[in-house]
Amino acid sequence: MSTRSFSLVSRDLAAIGRRFYARGWVQGTSGNFSAVLTQRPLQLAITASSVHKGRLGAANILRINESAIPLGARRQVPSAETRLHLEIVRRRGARAVLHTHSIWGTILSESATNGDGVTIEGFEMLKGLSGVRTHEHAEHIPVLDNDQDMSRLASVVGETLDRHPNAHSFLLRRHGLYTWGDSLADAERHVEILEFLFETVGRGATFRPPGGEGT
Amino acid sequence: MSTRSFSLVSRDLAAIGRRFYARGWVQGTSGNFSAVLTQRPLQLAITASSVHKGRLGAANILRINESAIPLGARRQVPSAETRLHLEIVRRRGARAVLHTHSIWGTILSESATNGDGVTIEGFEMLKGLSGVRTHEHAEHIPVLDNDQDMSRLASVVGETLDRHPNAHSFLLRRHGLYTWGDSLADAERHVEILEFLFETVGRGATFRPPGGEGT
Amino acid sequence: MSTRSFSLVSRDLAAIGRRFYARGWVQGTSGNFSAVLTQRPLQLAITASSVHKGRLGAANILRINESAIPLGARRQVPSAETRLHLEIVRRRGARAVLHTHSIWGTILSESATNGDGVTIEGFEMLKGLSGVRTHEHAEHIPVLDNDQDMSRLASVVGETLDRHPNAHSFLLRRHGLYTWGDSLADAERHVEILEFLFETVGRGATFRPPGGEGT
Amino acid sequence: MSTRSFSLVSRDLAAIGRRFYARGWVQGTSGNFSAVLTQRPLQLAITASSVHKGRLGAANILRINESAIPLGARRQVPSAETRLHLEIVRRRGARAVLHTHSIWGTILSESATNGDGVTIEGFEMLKGLSGVRTHEHAEHIPVLDNDQDMSRLASVVGETLDRHPNAHSFLLRRHGLYTWGDSLADAERHVEILEFLFETVGRGATFRPPGGEGT
Repeated sequence: MSTRSFSLVSRDLAAIGRRFYARGWVQGTSGNFSAVLTQRPLQLAITASSVHKGRLGAANILRINESAIPLGARRQVPSAETRLHLEIVRRRGARAVLHTHSIWGTILSESATNGDGVTIEGFEMLKGLSGVRTHEHAEHIPVLDNDQDMSRLASVVGETLDRHPNAHSFLLRRHGLYTWGDSLADAERHVEILEFLFETVGRGATFRPPGGEGT
Repeated sequence: MSTRSFSLVSRDLAAIGRRFYARGWVQGTSGNFSAVLTQRPLQLAITASSVHKGRLGAANILRINESAIPLGARRQVPSAETRLHLEIVRRRGARAVLHTHSIWGTILSESATNGDGVTIEGFEMLKGLSGVRTHEHAEHIPVLDNDQDMSRLASVVGETLDRHPNAHSFLLRRHGLYTWGDSLADAERHVEILEFLFETVGRGATFRPPGGEGT
Repeated sequence: MSTRSFSLVSRDLAAIGRRFYARGWVQGTSGNFSAVLTQRPLQLAITASSVHKGRLGAANILRINESAIPLGARRQVPSAETRLHLEIVRRRGARAVLHTHSIWGTILSESATNGDGVTIEGFEMLKGLSGVRTHEHAEHIPVLDNDQDMSRLASVVGETLDRHPNAHSFLLRRHGLYTWGDSLADAERHVEILEFLFETVGRGATFRPPGGEGT
Repeated sequence: MSTRSFSLVSRDLAAIGRRFYARGWVQGTSGNFSAVLTQRPLQLAITASSVHKGRLGAANILRINESAIPLGARRQVPSAETRLHLEIVRRRGARAVLHTHSIWGTILSESATNGDGVTIEGFEMLKGLSGVRTHEHAEHIPVLDNDQDMSRLASVVGETLDRHPNAHSFLLRRHGLYTWGDSLADAERHVEILEFLFETVGRGATFRPPGGEGT
């Protein structure tokens, strides 16, 4: 892929980061984002490690190969979670992977009582997930234990993706959301849809209809 | 109506979409908006299907006739919920119809215990609804079951509007709000007023006055 | 006061309206704002009735006399609540009066169990109210029943202000907040401080320290 | 340090203030911010007292010496809490100190049951605090009683910092957060991380997983 394409993708990734920061989904240096540049050989554009997402620019996006080795002249280090991005791209054929740290995603990640995940069903908004055609869909969001050992975590991510072939996302417990798509636009829409659902389920869980308001 | 009017209405609908997106009421591709262009024959300007509302532009607005058939050269498909817009325009004589997917609207849609709706009364903000002159007004918001069969749902919407001649809106369960008005400005104001009331009733339902704060 | 001053004050009032709208404190056409132009004879600049606050411009501000009669060429009607503004200006010597409809103000207005008001104490933020020097201050916010009869309500407001000479504000039940100041900047700061306190008290009322978090 | 550096630091402090104001963390005139200009002799740039943070400009930043005496021609008074900033700079070697008044910080400040503080652990976001390498970290945030006597409070702050050598911050009860860093960027990131954690812990405390949502 030409340098020009890498420039355009870098600019798009940086713009997504600034939009998510404005919404409070990637406070500080949290979150990381990637998009596939070429499939053979596999090359990704991915955010550098430790960059503040409110100040993310195209210059903070690196080009890496399938072994997570940076290509080109930039001297920054790719995100520590690069292996998870590569795992998702390989297992799902995703063209873009987005990882956020939101308040409601964090809270929901603790609601999985059997350690296996959260199921959300019956909402029209589910139709915003690729391939979902009806609100009667039940979307399962696996919840994985957080881990600082990226090699071990990548392996758990791989197994989880295989065990849940229809999942559009997963949550790392007390950490955040990973979702992906056939394009950056698809992946960004998935973040918006899932964040909406997390907040709706989270707020709705404490809601009790007031006596005088229901008919 | 002249092409110039269609241009102006398209620009207004797109601006409303972007404002609602910024408030979190139409995340992703959710929501759809329409305005009457001419009454005889009936023609509507309406959002195309599957457009992201944060990037909505005048080019994503279509002109359709009373049978929901697109007119003109644009090759996009009108919103799947076009029939609901037409039903509301015909039964209410509305000049504009707005449909949003908000968190509190979704939560409130589940609070109707007998399947018939939610009644909100006693708030000054109710005076923002057309024709309401006092906070002592009781506004009934019918709640309808969600349905992917638009022909069947349009028929339920029609019956509901006839059964509740004073309603300014209705909610589709776990889906969102429909409201309308004599102009786009009236319909937009109705969205703001109803969203305020949903959030106030929703948050207020969990509020308990602290011992030390009430006199 | 010269026409130029009226222009400047109108522009400031409109800017406040748009800022409050962006925060969700004056949705739709709710809220009204005024500032004293001259004291002898008393003249106020005040928002016209039924103007959407997100689109408020200097042209929507009217000049009125002490009897609430509009002066000058503009043909709009002053806010229905003009009498309350005049009452506050006369009893308090206020130079600016701001009225908002916020979600937490509405919810808190229902927490006054004996019909007399809400007392908030012990917060550092109270020092943002004019003349308050310590967080140990107890601020009483009288809550008045809402009423569409402005003459009767103005009379209740007058009595309330006399009975609570230290109050910086009052709430109309299920309606909104009135506060004032020696300048528009003082009144705007009072709105911010009081809204912060309403939200803090409102959210704090449902908060229970989690077992594992407190030491 | 040259005048030019003071100009740059002033501009940065003012920009931080406006960003925090937009997020609702320094409503009205609340909050104050400082950065070290020179270490020998110690000079700080610090916000003037009683400035509205939404309108904070570089002209509202003062240069002070180690005794909190303003240097230079500006006639404004430094923040009443200047002594706390100096205490933190001396005890921690911090290059920047930021103080905010947020809703969730205020609420969390009341959750310390034994008067000693709040401990937050197990969140990935903790890694945004300088020197923290794993989510398994337990961050203790001391909570101090609020006090209008700045000399006495500075002394309590000093003792607290010595007693909690690993703390990145402390809360003043019903008042707000103090945090710091090796640079303004570090301190700003600490505010974002801590506010995220306060809000997550605060909202999470009322969350109960809904029966039908957990698997």
